[in-house]
This record gives sequence, C-alpha cells and structure tokens, in this order.
Amino acid sequence: ATEGWQAADGELTRVVTRENFRDALLFVNAVGYLAERANHHPDISIAWNKVTLTLSTHSEGGLTGKDFALARLISDLG
Amino acid sequence: ATEGWQAADGELTRVVTRENFRDALLFVNAVGYLAERANHHPDISIAWNKVTLTLSTHSEGGLTGKDFALARLISDLG
Repeated sequence: ATEGWQAADGELTRVVTRENFRDALLFVNAVGYLAERANHHPDISIAWNKVTLTLSTHSEGGLTGKDFALARLISDLG
Repeated sequence: ATEGWQAADGELTRVVTRENFRDALLFVNAVGYLAERANHHPDISIAWNKVTLTLSTHSEGGLTGKDFALARLISDLG
C-alpha cells in the first residue's frame, strides 16, 4: 500500500495528527483542493487535531488506481 | 434540544446535506470558524455532500451549555 496508508476492506485509511484543530482544518482544505482536482473524494473526519481519511471507489466496490493516485498526492502534502 | 439537532448519549448530533463536496467543505470552514471563536470543537465528518457534526463536552462527560450555545450558532449559519 501507499506509505502511511492502511489498506483493508476495500479502503485506504490514513490518520493524520496536526498541532491543533486549526491546523487540522487547514490540512483538510488542502485535501479538499486535491479531491476536487481529482474529482474523487475521501471520507474525512476531524476530531480536534486528528484527521481520518478514507479512500474507496464506491462505484467499483473497492480500491482502484484513483484511490492510490489521490493517496499519493495527499501524502505529498507532508 | 436545539432545532435540527438530535440529543442522545450525551451528544448533540446534526447531519447537514449540501449541494456537493465543495459546498460541504465551505460549510465545515464556517463551523470551524465558530468553533475556534467558542474554543469548543465539534467532531466533524464529511462524506461528499453530507456533513455530520457531533457536539459534547468531553471534560464534563456530557452536554453542557457550551454545546447548546455552539449548536445554536451553527444552526444560525443556515
């Protein structure tokens, strides 16, 4: 799987911890920008400074190249 | 409970549906602004155009006036 992501049950999941809620939300906005560019959107949850991202291609019932490509772009955000 | 919010298990929950992911993320940013102002932060999940907000005062183990006050401000966003 892509570095930092867990693959299970047809999903790629990554948990990212930031300094605080504000930094977590800025990170989510960067993810959102990439998601719009890719026309492919992870499920996102924010619990104060902890962001959980879940990627899957629902129309295909599992993981596709779109998930791995977006995972890599998100990882590149650092 | 506050209009549009469900109270259960020491939490206030509201599901908000927007036109698309972009509108959902803009809504989350407005919620984030209010949360920072209040220094009180809901758990937030985004599934494309559907945003789920969960408010609780973890330090008190349940709902307090901070949750109801923030719920009302969020509802006022429309």
